[in-house]
Amino acid sequence: MICTFDQLFEAVRNRPRRTLAVPSAEGGSIVAACAEAYRAGICDTILIGDPAKLDALRQAHARDCDGLRVEAEPDPDRAVARALTLIRAGEANLLMKGKTDTPTLLKAVLDADTGLRTGRVLSHVAVVAMPAYPRLMLWTDGGINIRPTLDVRLDMIRNAAEFAGKLGVAVPNVALLSAMEKINPKMEETLDYERILKLHQDTPVAPATIEGPIAMDVALSAESARIKEIDSRIAGVADIFVTPEISACNIAVKALIYLAGAQAAGLVVGARVPIVLLSRSDDAGTKLRSIALGAIWG
Amino acid sequence: MICTFDQLFEAVRNRPRRTLAVPSAEGGSIVAACAEAYRAGICDTILIGDPAKLDALRQAHARDCDGLRVEAEPDPDRAVARALTLIRAGEANLLMKGKTDTPTLLKAVLDADTGLRTGRVLSHVAVVAMPAYPRLMLWTDGGINIRPTLDVRLDMIRNAAEFAGKLGVAVPNVALLSAMEKINPKMEETLDYERILKLHQDTPVAPATIEGPIAMDVALSAESARIKEIDSRIAGVADIFVTPEISACNIAVKALIYLAGAQAAGLVVGARVPIVLLSRSDDAGTKLRSIALGAIWG
Repeated sequence: MICTFDQLFEAVRNRPRRTLAVPSAEGGSIVAACAEAYRAGICDTILIGDPAKLDALRQAHARDCDGLRVEAEPDPDRAVARALTLIRAGEANLLMKGKTDTPTLLKAVLDADTGLRTGRVLSHVAVVAMPAYPRLMLWTDGGINIRPTLDVRLDMIRNAAEFAGKLGVAVPNVALLSAMEKINPKMEETLDYERILKLHQDTPVAPATIEGPIAMDVALSAESARIKEIDSRIAGVADIFVTPEISACNIAVKALIYLAGAQAAGLVVGARVPIVLLSRSDDAGTKLRSIALGAIWG
Repeated sequence: MICTFDQLFEAVRNRPRRTLAVPSAEGGSIVAACAEAYRAGICDTILIGDPAKLDALRQAHARDCDGLRVEAEPDPDRAVARALTLIRAGEANLLMKGKTDTPTLLKAVLDADTGLRTGRVLSHVAVVAMPAYPRLMLWTDGGINIRPTLDVRLDMIRNAAEFAGKLGVAVPNVALLSAMEKINPKMEETLDYERILKLHQDTPVAPATIEGPIAMDVALSAESARIKEIDSRIAGVADIFVTPEISACNIAVKALIYLAGAQAAGLVVGARVPIVLLSRSDDAGTKLRSIALGAIWG
């Protein structure tokens, strides 16, 4: 079981080397992140785009990296198509967004014929590490699904549980978060959670221990569960934190990063390979951790 | 400007002493918290309820506290009515929930004839202090308003801005949080935020600098705003964090408390006096800080 990002990096280095495909890779910070991942022993990269620009960027950022290959395809749409072809052919095992905008990339990934569909909804998982918590936290979904329906929530849980499996957590503890523990018809998520638990009882939604609605204090603290007299199997040992809607996840994870020194990284999962979506405001550590998460999965 | 809870305690001690009214106060942790507040020089208390039980609790928890008075009113509804009468008469300046359940207490507070209405919606404000942030953060609303309408959001801002004023922040910086900076019709809050900014431009909603939709990283970090090329006057110096709905606030604040050692406290505001709602799972420090917040306001 991988409990820290250091353990993640070690596990990735001990696995067969993966290859990352990046369509429209003509960006300094993109090439720099790929070079850093190569140097850290995480993965090789195929940079797809304008060959002259990419060669110049490789000179600037990745001079000593023989694991960074360039494929010439200056047209943005064809660059995405080429990346997906490489992945379907097994020549690359993970996908990273370059200059393509996110909706365009995801649309191509979801194409029924040429994409990487699995039948599941795509969802974002943020992985957060903090000294105060004994394991990695998987938060979902702060990036893709705005106000999930019941079916989307089910896929969010499946995607995150599969992710936990890649980190060595075979049966993750899933906290279906709300502001309180009671079913409240005015809080749609609590009705969805009730349905999810019932479905899970009949046919497991995923190999996981699922509880909800559960408040954040109980998910994080066995002591809080005891005081509130809530009989929880996951209090203080939750692995997956499912939020009612996008802003709860996005705000909480960013608060932990910016106020509490949390180390974080993220991936879009639910496709045949994970998708790394880096933001310009991600620091170098976040970029490297996100690529490493892709490599442990891919 | 009060930037820490230590400064809050000092400011409270230097003000005329306040009196807290607690209907149905027959609870060990309730009486203990009031005794602690008395000893800390924060306020006196009128405990309303069954006199025999209250005398026994006072013996057990508040033997040396001459600032804890008992009023005999064993009937729970009449105890609430009595507390409101004391407040309307100026004999008490703040209200704390005892054993009354929250909806019953708030309904009495909102009664048009006998309550403490101001015309504004009630809202919850959590005040959070962390070494990593240079000022107190006011988070709203993680306790009362589930999915606020535009009008409720306006009152949430007014209530929190008034609260900031009590803490010496005359023109607070208000971050209307979302998962991203763009207006997105699929995210109702962003449409509300657009309306709020427009209204605020014509007639100030409150004495405040308001921005939104703003993502949490930008609200917390001028550096993040710079990288994302967002021209913000409040990045890194936000005072008030308005979340789209209840769970975002509740989850984020609890994550900071349980994972990052944040000191927190909370109040219900919008009535003529603030209302302290303590939870059994609040530790002694949280209870004392919440009463002190009430005393600086009341």
